[in-house]
Amino acid sequence: MNINSNYLNLQDSYLFSTIAKKVVEFTQKNPGKKLIKMGIGDVTLPLAPVVVDAIKKAADEMGVQSSFKGYGPEQGYAFLRDAIKKYYQRKDVQLESDEIFISDGAKSDLGNILDIFGLDNTVLIPDPVYPVYVDTNIMAGRKVLFIDANESNGFLPLPDETIKCDIIYICSPNNPTGAVYSKSDLKKWVDYALKNDAVILFDAAYECFIKSEELPNSIYEIDGAKDCAIEFCSFSKTAGFTGTRCGYTVVPKSLKRQDTMLNKLWLRRQTTKFNGVPYIVQRAAEAVFSQEGQIQIKNNLQYYSENAKIISDTMDKKGIWYTGGKHSPYIWLKCPNNMKSWEFFDFLLNNIAVVGTPGAGFGKNGEGYFRLTSFGNRENTLEAMNRFSSLF
Amino acid sequence: MNINSNYLNLQDSYLFSTIAKKVVEFTQKNPGKKLIKMGIGDVTLPLAPVVVDAIKKAADEMGVQSSFKGYGPEQGYAFLRDAIKKYYQRKDVQLESDEIFISDGAKSDLGNILDIFGLDNTVLIPDPVYPVYVDTNIMAGRKVLFIDANESNGFLPLPDETIKCDIIYICSPNNPTGAVYSKSDLKKWVDYALKNDAVILFDAAYECFIKSEELPNSIYEIDGAKDCAIEFCSFSKTAGFTGTRCGYTVVPKSLKRQDTMLNKLWLRRQTTKFNGVPYIVQRAAEAVFSQEGQIQIKNNLQYYSENAKIISDTMDKKGIWYTGGKHSPYIWLKCPNNMKSWEFFDFLLNNIAVVGTPGAGFGKNGEGYFRLTSFGNRENTLEAMNRFSSLF
Repeated sequence: MNINSNYLNLQDSYLFSTIAKKVVEFTQKNPGKKLIKMGIGDVTLPLAPVVVDAIKKAADEMGVQSSFKGYGPEQGYAFLRDAIKKYYQRKDVQLESDEIFISDGAKSDLGNILDIFGLDNTVLIPDPVYPVYVDTNIMAGRKVLFIDANESNGFLPLPDETIKCDIIYICSPNNPTGAVYSKSDLKKWVDYALKNDAVILFDAAYECFIKSEELPNSIYEIDGAKDCAIEFCSFSKTAGFTGTRCGYTVVPKSLKRQDTMLNKLWLRRQTTKFNGVPYIVQRAAEAVFSQEGQIQIKNNLQYYSENAKIISDTMDKKGIWYTGGKHSPYIWLKCPNNMKSWEFFDFLLNNIAVVGTPGAGFGKNGEGYFRLTSFGNRENTLEAMNRFSSLF
Repeated sequence: MNINSNYLNLQDSYLFSTIAKKVVEFTQKNPGKKLIKMGIGDVTLPLAPVVVDAIKKAADEMGVQSSFKGYGPEQGYAFLRDAIKKYYQRKDVQLESDEIFISDGAKSDLGNILDIFGLDNTVLIPDPVYPVYVDTNIMAGRKVLFIDANESNGFLPLPDETIKCDIIYICSPNNPTGAVYSKSDLKKWVDYALKNDAVILFDAAYECFIKSEELPNSIYEIDGAKDCAIEFCSFSKTAGFTGTRCGYTVVPKSLKRQDTMLNKLWLRRQTTKFNGVPYIVQRAAEAVFSQEGQIQIKNNLQYYSENAKIISDTMDKKGIWYTGGKHSPYIWLKCPNNMKSWEFFDFLLNNIAVVGTPGAGFGKNGEGYFRLTSFGNRENTLEAMNRFSSLF
C-alpha cells in the first residue's frame, strides 16, 4: 500500500494560523482595546429574506410524501440551470442548460475539475494567487509554472509567448488583488490558449462586484472562449452562501481536446463521484434570481461596495498605491514606507488594532503588499480607516 | 493538453437507461395496466418532522445577522460530529470527534478518498458490486481485481490468501445483494488487510437496516479495524436524505501507511478541495439523533422493513433462493426456471407489470439474479407480490 506521495510535497500554510496566534497574543496584552478585523474573506450579512423563505418552503415540500424529493440529477435541477442560463443572457452570453453544472461551490469544482485532465499537463498560475490552485495540482503531481503579477502589470499579467502550458488559471476580479481584466486583455489569454491547445480555468467567483458594463463578468463574453475555457462561479459572495454552499461550473459543449468533449468527461466525473446539491439549497439559489431576490442581494453587495470605497478613498487620500476596491471586495495595497507584509501587519495591529492579511501569504510577489476586505460592518470600517488615517 | 485518458476505458452503463426504455415501450403498448416499480434504490417516505423543523429553524438563524453562519469547518460542525460519536457508542465503538468527517454523502467520499492513495495500488472489489467502486478506480488508472460473490458463499466472499492487494472494498449490508457479514467473517477480512498492509474501504450506508445485536453495524466493532479500515456512512437511507445530502466518513488516527496518518491526508484533501456541508443540512442531520428524531426515523425504517418481509415471505413460500430482505432493503433472488437476468426482467414486466433490476447489471456474477427493493409503498408491494405469487 502506497499513499499518494505528492501530498508530502504540499507546504503547510501558516498564514491564517499565524494571524490568529498574533491576534490572541495582542488581545491578551491589550484587553481593553477594540480590535477591528479586516482580513476575513467571508461575508457577514445574513441571507436575503427571499432565500430564507425559499429554504423553508422547500423544507415543507420535503416533509410531505407527494412533494418529497429523493436523488436529484447530479448536474442540478433544470429550474436552477435555466435561471443561470437566463442570468448569463444579461451580458449576451448564450449557454445551453446542459453546459451548466450545479455544485456545492467553486472551491470543490476548481479542485475536482482536474480529474478530467492528464497528469502530464503543465499548469500556469499567476503569483500571488488563491492557494487552492497550486495545492490541488501539487496533490496530483503536475508541473506548476508561475507567471508574475506585480505593480508593473497592475497585477494583471498577460501571456508570455515563450512559455508552453496546458492548463491556465485566471481569477478576475482577482483574489487576493481585486484587479479585473479588461475584455481586450482577456482576449489575449483566450488567443494564447487557443494557439497552445491549452484550457483556461476561469474563476468568476467575484463577478457580482463588477460595476462597469465594459468589464467582462464572464470569459464567454470573449470570442473564442467557448473553445478553450471552463468557468467557475458561486453564490458564496453573490448572495452570502459561504455557509449554504452552492456554485456552478460551465463547460461548453464546443470545448474539445483530443477529439473528446470535456463536457462529457465532466458529466461522467460528476455522475460517478457526486450526487448533486441539496434540493433545499437549489431552491434557495433559484430565489436569488427572482426579481425580489435581485433587489435584496444587490442591497447587500452595495453595502460591501460602500465599505470598499471607504477603504480605497483612504488609500487615495494618503497616496498609497493599490489595486481592487472598485469592482471587488478586496483592496490590495502597497505597504507604506517599504515595509514588508508581516512588518506592516504587526505595525497595524500594534498601533491601531486593525487586522489585515499579509500579501506574502499568497506567493512571492505578494511580499510588500497587504489585503484589506470590505466584508466587515460599516461602523468598524469607518473607524478602522479613521485610525489608519491618523498613522500616515 | 492531454485529457485523462483513463476516462476512455470506462464502460457506459446502460442498465437504468435500458430499463427506462423497456418501461416506456411497455406503457405505450399497455396503456391501461398499472405498473409497479420495485427497481428503484431511492427512498420514498418524506423527511421526518423533526428534520423539517430543524431546517426551518436553521434557515431563520441564517436570516439574522447575529446568528448567520458563513464558512464552517470543512470537516463539519462539532455539534454533528459529537452526535455521530455518541451514536457509535451504542455499539461500544469509541471514536474521537476529529476522526469523523461530515460530507455531502457516501458516494462523494467513496470516490474522493482515492485521492490520498497512490496510483500503483491494486484494488480488490467483490462482484456483483455498486458500480461506483469500479468506475472511480478506472478513472485513476488503478489495477482492479474482482473476487467472486456467488450462491456458494452466500454472496459474502472471504479473503483469498493467494491474492495480493492494497485497497479492499466491502459493503455490508450489501448493495445489491442485501447480504450481511457476521463479526467472525468480517474479522477474517480485517486480519487479511493487516497482514497485507492493505486498507479496507467499508461502506456502511445500509447499517440502519440491521436488526440483530450480533451483526456488526460498523467495522470498528472488529478488533484491529482501526488500523486498517476507513468507514463510510450516510443519512440517505437512515433518514431519507437522498435529496438532502449528508454523510460521514471515519478515518481513525491510528490508521497509518508509510508512517503517515491517513486522517491527516484526508483532512488536507478536504480542507483543500471541499468547503463543508451546508449549515442548514448539518442541523437537519443533528435532529436525526434527537430522541424524537430516532423514533420518527425508526418508524420509516420499520415501514420499509415490513415491505421487505412481504417480499421475502413470498420468495420463501415459492421456494425461490435469495439473500437480503431481513437486514437490508434489498432482496436479491435467483431467477426461477434458470432464467437469465434480462429474460426474467422481461418476463415480470410483460406478465405482471412489475419492474425490478437485472442482476447482470452489477457484474458477471449477477447474471441469473434479480434485485427487488422495499422502498415502494405498502399497497404496491402487496399487489406486486400477489401478482408474483400467481406466476409460480
